[in-house]
Amino acid sequence: MTGSAERSWWGWGTTDRALSDDECVATGALVPGLRTRPRAVPDLAAVDLPASRITPPPSLPVSAAPPDRAAHTYGKAYRDVVRALSGDLRGAPDGVAFPRTEAEVVDLLDWAAATGVVVVPYGGGSSVVGGVEYRGERPWLSMDLTRLDRVLEVDPVSRAARIQGGALGPVLEEQLRPSGLTLRHFPQSFEFSTLGGWLATRAGGHYATLHTHIDDLVESLRVVTPAGVNESWRLPASGAGPSPDRLFLGSEGALGVITEAWMRLQDRPRWKASASVTFADMTAATGAVRAIAQAGLHPANCRLLDPGEAAMAGAATGEAVLVLGVESAAHPVESRLTELTGLARAHGGTVAAGGGGRDTAADTWRSAFLRMPYVRDGMARMGAIVETFETACTWDRVEELYTTVRAEVGAAVAQVTGAPGLVTCRFTHVYPDGAAPYFTVVAAGRPGSEVAMWDDVKTTATEVLGRLGATITHHHAVGRDHRPGYDRQRPEPFALALRAAKAALDPAGILNPGVLVEAPSDHNL
Amino acid sequence: MTGSAERSWWGWGTTDRALSDDECVATGALVPGLRTRPRAVPDLAAVDLPASRITPPPSLPVSAAPPDRAAHTYGKAYRDVVRALSGDLRGAPDGVAFPRTEAEVVDLLDWAAATGVVVVPYGGGSSVVGGVEYRGERPWLSMDLTRLDRVLEVDPVSRAARIQGGALGPVLEEQLRPSGLTLRHFPQSFEFSTLGGWLATRAGGHYATLHTHIDDLVESLRVVTPAGVNESWRLPASGAGPSPDRLFLGSEGALGVITEAWMRLQDRPRWKASASVTFADMTAATGAVRAIAQAGLHPANCRLLDPGEAAMAGAATGEAVLVLGVESAAHPVESRLTELTGLARAHGGTVAAGGGGRDTAADTWRSAFLRMPYVRDGMARMGAIVETFETACTWDRVEELYTTVRAEVGAAVAQVTGAPGLVTCRFTHVYPDGAAPYFTVVAAGRPGSEVAMWDDVKTTATEVLGRLGATITHHHAVGRDHRPGYDRQRPEPFALALRAAKAALDPAGILNPGVLVEAPSDHNL
Repeated sequence: MTGSAERSWWGWGTTDRALSDDECVATGALVPGLRTRPRAVPDLAAVDLPASRITPPPSLPVSAAPPDRAAHTYGKAYRDVVRALSGDLRGAPDGVAFPRTEAEVVDLLDWAAATGVVVVPYGGGSSVVGGVEYRGERPWLSMDLTRLDRVLEVDPVSRAARIQGGALGPVLEEQLRPSGLTLRHFPQSFEFSTLGGWLATRAGGHYATLHTHIDDLVESLRVVTPAGVNESWRLPASGAGPSPDRLFLGSEGALGVITEAWMRLQDRPRWKASASVTFADMTAATGAVRAIAQAGLHPANCRLLDPGEAAMAGAATGEAVLVLGVESAAHPVESRLTELTGLARAHGGTVAAGGGGRDTAADTWRSAFLRMPYVRDGMARMGAIVETFETACTWDRVEELYTTVRAEVGAAVAQVTGAPGLVTCRFTHVYPDGAAPYFTVVAAGRPGSEVAMWDDVKTTATEVLGRLGATITHHHAVGRDHRPGYDRQRPEPFALALRAAKAALDPAGILNPGVLVEAPSDHNL
Repeated sequence: MTGSAERSWWGWGTTDRALSDDECVATGALVPGLRTRPRAVPDLAAVDLPASRITPPPSLPVSAAPPDRAAHTYGKAYRDVVRALSGDLRGAPDGVAFPRTEAEVVDLLDWAAATGVVVVPYGGGSSVVGGVEYRGERPWLSMDLTRLDRVLEVDPVSRAARIQGGALGPVLEEQLRPSGLTLRHFPQSFEFSTLGGWLATRAGGHYATLHTHIDDLVESLRVVTPAGVNESWRLPASGAGPSPDRLFLGSEGALGVITEAWMRLQDRPRWKASASVTFADMTAATGAVRAIAQAGLHPANCRLLDPGEAAMAGAATGEAVLVLGVESAAHPVESRLTELTGLARAHGGTVAAGGGGRDTAADTWRSAFLRMPYVRDGMARMGAIVETFETACTWDRVEELYTTVRAEVGAAVAQVTGAPGLVTCRFTHVYPDGAAPYFTVVAAGRPGSEVAMWDDVKTTATEVLGRLGATITHHHAVGRDHRPGYDRQRPEPFALALRAAKAALDPAGILNPGVLVEAPSDHNL
């Protein structure tokens, strides 16, 4: 899927799919007040990198090559892209490690702990929350795990596979193909993120209900911590104490490096059906989605686009659009889709012609969905602020959240940029007791101030989510950007426990300091 | 449901449902080599209790009444019943606390921490793993939480309720009834166990697939720890760091006292259908159950009884019996049941007449199921060894596990008791990647040696499970009895993290020491 196309060092994905200058102009024309021509992408050879401060032994697989260091300086948030585009690589890692074996991971951590070098685990580098950069003063190593990308074992009876943590989505699916099995975890970043990254950040996949997070697909984990290798048993379920895996799921590289996991697989779906349903407004649509989520039907897809989001996807009717999809490897699904569209109709929805069978709504939306980050980069080059944030809350607060976020974040955009901008929303995942709204903000930035302007808007978003008791992140993780919201949300005794666990597993405080908890060594070294 | 019937101080449930002496004799006749008349139940007034070593301030709700202390000495494992029947209450708590408010829980913990008194949280007291007794030398308090039994709030939109941790199953369902909602978590201990106990032990409910454990029904927890009150936000899902709730789910009273939880509810089912299917042998039956578990159909009931278990349930045909059930509040379920029985037929099953609609197999089995612990007590009075253990493993090992456990535990029974005894099995819960086999052992004990004999058999069971990589417990918890198996199963770095978390939250080491981790104070005091 990625083929041999070159990865972009400053933006999303591969260079061959980046918007051309003309495409940037055409897209930028949709937002008033942007530049007339896109900002140039700096020549990497001309960008200043600070001198590397580390000298690892030659036996360790560490590169100090400028392209490696540049490409591992940031994740892929809007603020990362803008900083890279401006040629600001002051925070570049002192080196990039490319371990090819778990033993090399161990050796790298041993060396880092002995020398006080910070290690930031790096999967596909698609973090949009500052999860793979280091903002402290110590020398640091980005540990790129993509050489650990093998499917080591497949158990077709239990439908599970042992997979190395550095396997990118297409790389692992390609290896699973001969078995007829699939992990079927398709986040937007699928091509450019790894199994280990998904696990460390509790990534959300394409399933809109039931098994929404990678967490649910885990049978066991193997994690290299500075205190030793943590390997849980392969189990379909267990009641033996607090789940060991759940401590590492969401640990964001702060407790260890996930080198392997036994993952639950599925047969490839044989039956699929989808439909799109329109609603006059979000109130009606939200009621329908709630009824569907509470009916125990578990659609694979159940994505609600608000009118603004629907317009961006090409349906400028002023209506909300619900995309429903059902799939199964074991039985036909038409009757399920009929039950779903029936519920949608009962709540005021209009099923699009062709609904009830296979239609193109899901495919169309999926293509646009995978294109979005490239469009985001093109818009950034035109001087736009384009970013997303996502959350989840219980149904009793979903409508209030939707209204309040649009109002207050919209006001913050106007305040910061001097123009109204756009705040749109889709529900990416739904649950019997709530939904996960995902917001997109588009506005015109002032050249040179885009990052600060976005940070101001984000501060408002964080404040609103916290006030309404909505999570700071449903599936993008905490990283560094979400620390204020996370610190507010996390119960204090749990923070004590997590700090204690961190100190026990990473006594030198070398692992991704600044993410989730303060590293002891940030105070001690 | 429990009405005003008196709770048994020595055995399961209520005294009015205990087997009469004649019933004991009739049941005991099924096992060769037992007593001819049941052992008498000791007169509680004549049983020796050690003098209480504590003098809590009168403001604290602590009872030193002998019946309270006797009834809180043990859980309800076979070895607990035998010890109580023998009048051995040497390990009785020095007092029993009955907090009526969360503030009293805090006060009790403060006092205990200040005085070094051990606190063992006690819900319904139905632990079968030594989870509610203390085996150390320090003075100890059993904290009975059943006065904290209110449903405090219902959110009908999100279908959730805030419920106090001490509510017994029937008590909380009764309060939910006016809302039309139900938690629908029905462990075998339903009448005699509490929400907080279910959460602290990761209890398994009656759902055989999908939401098998109470874990999945949790929106948020409120936990009093010695380091402060830990309250997570009500969220349908979150990706913000490692789940705080997952640290406390399965913490077995060692990290804090669960005083409240927001729990996900459901509408009461309107449609139900069940069927029973017979199979010539366990190999065919296991294949069918695996196909069903992997088809994404999520039956509410999917319990497979091996021939021995089926015989105990009244079907002495030498066949394995699969009980299937489907239920829904939102849509008819006959088509689902047809899909399920179709899969069972395709794997060699014979659907019982009446299958396809509502039949009585499920109800019959359920009545026998709820009666089992009373029968166990009657058998214990007749001198039998009657105990269960349960586990889970992936499908690739299920048949080997079934065969090996029956062979090796059977051999251990013969070795220990001098007679073959009975080892039967049912699958209580099934997953796409594995199953949870539940074994029952019945044999003739030697008077006065029953506990030691069972412990010997259990040692073999623990060894076999560990050797085959099957969990030491799927839903009975670890307690004290499962520590050897748990210590083998738990990854060592996770043990370090858990000990560190325990030390951070319970620095005085007063909370249920001996469960899950060593308390620091077991070494320090």
